[in-house]
Amino acid sequence: MKNMSNKLKNFFDATSFCVIGASTNPLKPGGVVAENFAKKFPGKLYLVNPRGGEHELAGKKYPLYKSILDIEDTIDVAIIIVPAKYAPKALEECGKKSITKVIITTGGFSEIGVEGQKIQEEMLEIMNKYRINVIGPNCLGLYAPKLGYDTMFLPESKLKRPKSGKISIFTQSGAFGAAFIDQLYRLGSGNWVSKFISYGNASDINEAHCIDYLGSDEETKVILVYLEDFKNGRKFIEKTREISLKKPIMGIKANRTETGAKAGASHTAALSSNNAVVDDLLAEAGFIRVTTWGDLEDCVLAFGTQPLPAGDRVAIVTDGGGAGVMASDMVSDCNLKLAKLSEETQKKLDESFPVFYSTENPIDITGSATAEDYRIALEAVYNDPSVDSVVNLCLPCIPNLNIEEYIQITKEISKRKEKPFLTALVGGNEAIWGTEKLLEEDVPCFDSPGRAVRAVGLLTQYAKFLERHNANESPLNQQ
Amino acid sequence: MKNMSNKLKNFFDATSFCVIGASTNPLKPGGVVAENFAKKFPGKLYLVNPRGGEHELAGKKYPLYKSILDIEDTIDVAIIIVPAKYAPKALEECGKKSITKVIITTGGFSEIGVEGQKIQEEMLEIMNKYRINVIGPNCLGLYAPKLGYDTMFLPESKLKRPKSGKISIFTQSGAFGAAFIDQLYRLGSGNWVSKFISYGNASDINEAHCIDYLGSDEETKVILVYLEDFKNGRKFIEKTREISLKKPIMGIKANRTETGAKAGASHTAALSSNNAVVDDLLAEAGFIRVTTWGDLEDCVLAFGTQPLPAGDRVAIVTDGGGAGVMASDMVSDCNLKLAKLSEETQKKLDESFPVFYSTENPIDITGSATAEDYRIALEAVYNDPSVDSVVNLCLPCIPNLNIEEYIQITKEISKRKEKPFLTALVGGNEAIWGTEKLLEEDVPCFDSPGRAVRAVGLLTQYAKFLERHNANESPLNQQ
Repeated sequence: MKNMSNKLKNFFDATSFCVIGASTNPLKPGGVVAENFAKKFPGKLYLVNPRGGEHELAGKKYPLYKSILDIEDTIDVAIIIVPAKYAPKALEECGKKSITKVIITTGGFSEIGVEGQKIQEEMLEIMNKYRINVIGPNCLGLYAPKLGYDTMFLPESKLKRPKSGKISIFTQSGAFGAAFIDQLYRLGSGNWVSKFISYGNASDINEAHCIDYLGSDEETKVILVYLEDFKNGRKFIEKTREISLKKPIMGIKANRTETGAKAGASHTAALSSNNAVVDDLLAEAGFIRVTTWGDLEDCVLAFGTQPLPAGDRVAIVTDGGGAGVMASDMVSDCNLKLAKLSEETQKKLDESFPVFYSTENPIDITGSATAEDYRIALEAVYNDPSVDSVVNLCLPCIPNLNIEEYIQITKEISKRKEKPFLTALVGGNEAIWGTEKLLEEDVPCFDSPGRAVRAVGLLTQYAKFLERHNANESPLNQQ
Repeated sequence: MKNMSNKLKNFFDATSFCVIGASTNPLKPGGVVAENFAKKFPGKLYLVNPRGGEHELAGKKYPLYKSILDIEDTIDVAIIIVPAKYAPKALEECGKKSITKVIITTGGFSEIGVEGQKIQEEMLEIMNKYRINVIGPNCLGLYAPKLGYDTMFLPESKLKRPKSGKISIFTQSGAFGAAFIDQLYRLGSGNWVSKFISYGNASDINEAHCIDYLGSDEETKVILVYLEDFKNGRKFIEKTREISLKKPIMGIKANRTETGAKAGASHTAALSSNNAVVDDLLAEAGFIRVTTWGDLEDCVLAFGTQPLPAGDRVAIVTDGGGAGVMASDMVSDCNLKLAKLSEETQKKLDESFPVFYSTENPIDITGSATAEDYRIALEAVYNDPSVDSVVNLCLPCIPNLNIEEYIQITKEISKRKEKPFLTALVGGNEAIWGTEKLLEEDVPCFDSPGRAVRAVGLLTQYAKFLERHNANESPLNQQ
């Protein structure tokens, strides 16, 4: 495991790339990947198809080599997209061609049982013989929009691609990865992804290589993970402990239960570990563990757009008492505190608002609130040094609120990025409309008070972790 | 507390209604309520405004009485929408006019502190003197679309109204109620609400009256609750225990934490109880307690559209292993079991699918799945008597899936209503599109595997409660 991170770095650094199993059908996996590279990859591209001939992609004609051995140039990375039974021969030829970086996306290996297991073992022998590093099999491979690198074999008509951003993702489950990528495209501006790694059966490259590489990758500011089990858990935890002092690492470790483990066994050929032990180890290493798909989206919005808080003191502004109570319950659930406002802030609020507004935190500007009331309350708590994070709750159905003004005010405060500022809009059409308006500028907006507070909770959890380890230079705040 | 339920019944049974504080401005609360009743209420309507004159609403001219005492006819129910300081006089006049049912929506009473508390006490004396039943103050009052009864003082331009359905709701927080009503309008067909009761400060009518009335109301099949604290907790629990054997009762009891209680104190003037005790009492009485706003929407979709399961055995069909693992974890979290499929079903699946599909439950038809594969798998498990509920997971980004066919298949199975059938669609645009298509026919569809399984969990929790109490005639199944 020396130079672990280089293993993956060399995949991404490729200046020449070969698709073994390139198809002339643009909807077939081998056709999709060929087209992805022809259109976006700045390096050299070679296509292998046993039928031979020629194939035009993105206005350029590519010869179809019958074997990779027919190609004279050196090749940095190859992808194998042929049925499992032909994969060993293709890999052997890569070895003979001195290609040491191979992505195998095809399924039909250890995840399907004894028969596939045998092919995977055959592949392992070839890998060892030629010292080939393999990503996969049974995966989506790699995606890095800024590098024009895209081995995801699903056409854009089925799977949209999010644009370049600061979050890197690695996933044991390709299906999870695909759906999450699809979801990120649709979330806000869609500018989210630096590197995406789907490593499938982890016959070679596993979660430890991924975390190590992304830890050292300067363009990766946030690491998001989907794991079912560990291939090299000790190394993963060791690396996580080190890297989480520099950038936040968060995600799902599924297979939490025996039932989940049973499901996982027939999927990525993984075995469950003792969840309580895993949970402790992950927490101690600074891994921010969440459990649901919705949590992950909340992580992207929170860590992808917000600075870290200086502490755990939260101010809540709401126009609905019930929403304030639910949010306050969640403040407690997430080990946060309701900030005690400074005298100055309290005075400002008391002077600005009628007697029936509740000016103590949580500040309830009631069903009589106007957009201007929101501005006054939000700015007052945002400017208060005794407030570390602000939660902005709005039920837009109240009569005097101009939703457009409210959205504008929210956007303006959100731009300051001095402390976490999270919004929740709850209700019908106006809430949906406002949420879209905020998200299109990557202003985090949630559909319930609890989710907004929980997002603050996750940011604060990480800030506290850094503080405990005297890593006070918050990486998110330096961006 | 004798004839508790009649107190509320008489409000809804009104054949004559008076708006005290009717405004000629259609956007002011007194104008909105007057218009609501003029447009939708089949009984007689009277308007009171000290300025006198006349006001045309829905093509009909109404005299504006200077005082309710000027009206000669008898009046069943009056709503008082005047500033708090004028409310005692208005209530006194209701008493003189022998009106014993009064809704007071205005705020500015006990919830704002000492001064308001004094007015509320003055009101209480008048209520006692004339034996008036009061809903409020500081609330939205009542909404019953089928009865044309709508005291919600927010105009439809701000607050959309869901249409008639089988779910009744009562809420201590008016703001919560408004936002949730707004949300239900937008959810699926919008046909959800039988009775809605927002009782605010509960100076008289409280949660115990609400549960009692809705328990006896035949059109109410499901009861959904938002509570912060109890005015008459003993009675509420007693009634809940009795009614939950006939129809499911679910909802949020906020103020779970000290932080929440602090927020609640300045809101509906409620004090927190010991949450652990409350939690036990509610559970023992069959109350299905949830914590988040999202949970409530899931409750509406599950209990509003699905039959109850015969047991806790769940079958999962998925095209993504990761989604299957997360769903299986949630199966365990929710005290459910993965169903062991019957031999016949297992044989059918094994014969129908290629070897790399995982045909044991959770059934993973992989990224190669077609809509037809979904049909085969879903029908097989749906028809299997050893399966009590079916969870239908789909990541639509896979290449061979025709999403329109898949949606059609899902709709068809959903119509059978023989067992719970819950869908989750995860991903980008296709997932969003499919979700909308399903929801517009009230086919429950969630945005994550976990939420779909949790919905099964809630239905099963209630089914088990009924079974433990030998109330095997499931009320939802009799609809």
